[in-house]
Amino acid sequence: MSAWRTWLQPGMRVKRWGTLAFLGLAGMVLSVAVGLVWAYRSYYFELQGNYPVLRPLTLQFIPHPWREVLLLLVGLMITIFAATRLNQSLLAPLLAKEASGRALAQIVAEHRFGPVRPAFGVVAIGGGTGLSSLLRGLKHHDAGITAIVTVADDGGSTGRLRAEFDIPAPGDIRNCIAALADDEALVTKLFQHRFQGDGSTLDGHSFGNLFITALTRTTGSFERAVEEASQVLNIRGRVLPATLENVQLSAELTDGTILHGESSVGEHGPRGKRIKGMFLTPKYPEAHAPALGAILNADLIILGPGSLFTSVVPNLLVAGIPEAIRWSEATVVYVCNVATQPGETDDFDAADHVRVIVEHLGAGRLDAVLVNANPASIVAARGDESIRPVVSGSLASEHLGVEVVARDLVSVTNPLRHDPQKLATVLMELARSRPTRRPRSVANNVEAAYRASVGNGNGSHREAAIDGRRDLASSGSLRRFNPVDGNAPPE
Amino acid sequence: MSAWRTWLQPGMRVKRWGTLAFLGLAGMVLSVAVGLVWAYRSYYFELQGNYPVLRPLTLQFIPHPWREVLLLLVGLMITIFAATRLNQSLLAPLLAKEASGRALAQIVAEHRFGPVRPAFGVVAIGGGTGLSSLLRGLKHHDAGITAIVTVADDGGSTGRLRAEFDIPAPGDIRNCIAALADDEALVTKLFQHRFQGDGSTLDGHSFGNLFITALTRTTGSFERAVEEASQVLNIRGRVLPATLENVQLSAELTDGTILHGESSVGEHGPRGKRIKGMFLTPKYPEAHAPALGAILNADLIILGPGSLFTSVVPNLLVAGIPEAIRWSEATVVYVCNVATQPGETDDFDAADHVRVIVEHLGAGRLDAVLVNANPASIVAARGDESIRPVVSGSLASEHLGVEVVARDLVSVTNPLRHDPQKLATVLMELARSRPTRRPRSVANNVEAAYRASVGNGNGSHREAAIDGRRDLASSGSLRRFNPVDGNAPPE
Repeated sequence: MSAWRTWLQPGMRVKRWGTLAFLGLAGMVLSVAVGLVWAYRSYYFELQGNYPVLRPLTLQFIPHPWREVLLLLVGLMITIFAATRLNQSLLAPLLAKEASGRALAQIVAEHRFGPVRPAFGVVAIGGGTGLSSLLRGLKHHDAGITAIVTVADDGGSTGRLRAEFDIPAPGDIRNCIAALADDEALVTKLFQHRFQGDGSTLDGHSFGNLFITALTRTTGSFERAVEEASQVLNIRGRVLPATLENVQLSAELTDGTILHGESSVGEHGPRGKRIKGMFLTPKYPEAHAPALGAILNADLIILGPGSLFTSVVPNLLVAGIPEAIRWSEATVVYVCNVATQPGETDDFDAADHVRVIVEHLGAGRLDAVLVNANPASIVAARGDESIRPVVSGSLASEHLGVEVVARDLVSVTNPLRHDPQKLATVLMELARSRPTRRPRSVANNVEAAYRASVGNGNGSHREAAIDGRRDLASSGSLRRFNPVDGNAPPE
Repeated sequence: MSAWRTWLQPGMRVKRWGTLAFLGLAGMVLSVAVGLVWAYRSYYFELQGNYPVLRPLTLQFIPHPWREVLLLLVGLMITIFAATRLNQSLLAPLLAKEASGRALAQIVAEHRFGPVRPAFGVVAIGGGTGLSSLLRGLKHHDAGITAIVTVADDGGSTGRLRAEFDIPAPGDIRNCIAALADDEALVTKLFQHRFQGDGSTLDGHSFGNLFITALTRTTGSFERAVEEASQVLNIRGRVLPATLENVQLSAELTDGTILHGESSVGEHGPRGKRIKGMFLTPKYPEAHAPALGAILNADLIILGPGSLFTSVVPNLLVAGIPEAIRWSEATVVYVCNVATQPGETDDFDAADHVRVIVEHLGAGRLDAVLVNANPASIVAARGDESIRPVVSGSLASEHLGVEVVARDLVSVTNPLRHDPQKLATVLMELARSRPTRRPRSVANNVEAAYRASVGNGNGSHREAAIDGRRDLASSGSLRRFNPVDGNAPPE
């Protein structure tokens, strides 16, 4: 919206005071005019020739009404110029402190009406480097970005902090916050700084993780800590933990082995076996309420890219999240990994990936799957015995009811990784090319209906999410909802 | 300064544009007036009685000149009201983001002229809890505060960080920054947060220390890290390390024992022996240049309170600092500790404390010593065998050439600690009651003279401090300078 249109929007409190100022000026003008009229009439002092100085000074050589028009125009120009400069003198010091570089009109509008909601809402669900890479691309597009992040990581710095301070995993959240921040800012570099000292007890800890941990302990709230960190880094979008509970991720293999902890899945996973299912402890943790709200109001929901079982699926095990995705009117896209991941998806083809997502999401809800079509990644994968490229071939032969979009998505320098810009551009094009499922204005109705259906008028989030899970799973009123054994709670 | 006087200051760019706006308005007013005069004269339409509506509407029932006065006043009031509200609409969103809560006039003035330099410059030199307690009191007074802090601490969290990351000690700096910050702010609490987890590798680390460490590593500069931290906490004053070098503090005892490291002095110090002298490694580290500038421009220099040998004296071992104190025109006050400190000043009386300071500062420069006179601390000291109260008695019998000021300085709840408010109030009163040694305007001349004398026109800081030390020590031109053996470099 142009600055002028923003200024003239109702509620900006600029029109009203501007108009009143004009009326006040009109009064002052009238008083002088009436006084002059009176003076002229009382003392008829326009004595031609007798006043060689007064005559040019009062512009009497210019005929009416041009005399008035000239005075008015000159006065108006001077006034506008001076008022503008006066306001600049007052505003410049304040604007200088505004890091965001937005126009004044936009700042006033946000102050009056709250943050502008971009026309297009994107929710990215996942974790790990895959999600932060996607966000790094998305932040350059005109979209309201919400990242919903798994907090089940238990390796490295994050794992040590979780074990020692009993908080949800900060690592993936930190990466997503940094991905949505200004890459060049000192605070972003500081946030991603990793302590490295020979034999240091801090060795390997990232400063951002310590920041979130200290904030969680100081404020007593992980949610608040993530919000404060997002504000400090002035990020473009929102990062939300999928759940505020301190969850542990476990995998059950086909031979019955149970692997506890996200990091042990990668270490001791597959090798000839397969992952039969994943579960969280506590079993169905409560979803973070704002995450559900974001999903319900999204236009585009992106699952992945990233570790299938340890980054994407854990989010779908949180009570309320798959249900909210089903309820939302958004286009739902799964971004398939470029190659298999040792210990997790050994020997998986693209169809296997999609089947796991559909199992957890319910049939019929996934709209599209995005697969890499750049053969460079096939070549690159030959160098590593433990991985295999994932291509679209298998998807063509099976009828999964999902649109298959095969494009060049990988980085030129490392064809085994997604390129943030390519990925984000294809996703935004894909979502915008699909018919909008509903007018934007009904978004809140969907949320209200969802909330009503789960009995969460004003109730606590905890009850909402848990009841929501039960109600949605057992209710027959849900559109397109087909409980899948692997997903439904075993009550 | 009142907001109005600030607005009208030259260079605010408010008068000029305000006046121009007024002239512009006058032009507009004249155009309407001249037009009306013309209209009235051309068409004489004041036909009494014929215009029952026009007559009251043009206020013709009010006689001249009250008609004009009324119109002018009403117009003026409406204009001022509307202009004020219009500006509020524009400014409120920006002021809402201003955490400092300062008036707009002050913000504009700072933007135009830089930060206001308070009329009275106070430099507090020391370290440890003593200095931060003093700063906590000073920040409520109208003074420009600079804290010069020793960076030789090597105990606890600070010691581990120093050993592992090779940086100057952040601990005392952190405490001083927090002391000058808003105690209630979340960021201050976060900064002082100490990680505590059972068996955690982070156990005992304070978040502020990690922040300064990570910033030092990210920016590559300890100085920059301290500045950034000060800005983040929006502190009232400045905190400067005495030196940017990574120094170690050692003590030589009367029996010849050398104790290396600040923390080992307290542990293995005195017990029947005495500390003969302290030294730093490297021997005469370069002073941090802004610290010298602050000292040279100060009106009041406060040494202590705090550990005599491990907090106050280390600052006086930095090349350039004692010389700058001698050169400055400030009142120099030493705040004596309330009680002796085991391992450092066992059996010291007040005169012993003062003698150590004079030894390091040179004779004749210390103006006053502040000693506690509240007997509550004598009573409290009886409870602890290892300490003795320090009272003014010994000072009366010796002629140290120093004014002795004995006042109630201690906390009601803990009479063995200074009360920040009492201490700061007495110090400010003391300094203000003494005749100013020079007009404020010569401050920069003093600094220029000092810099010229140490050959630091535009040279590097390092050379300046080292040359400064040599020049000052060997030069005969220095006013009141008497090299003391314990202090002079053994060249």
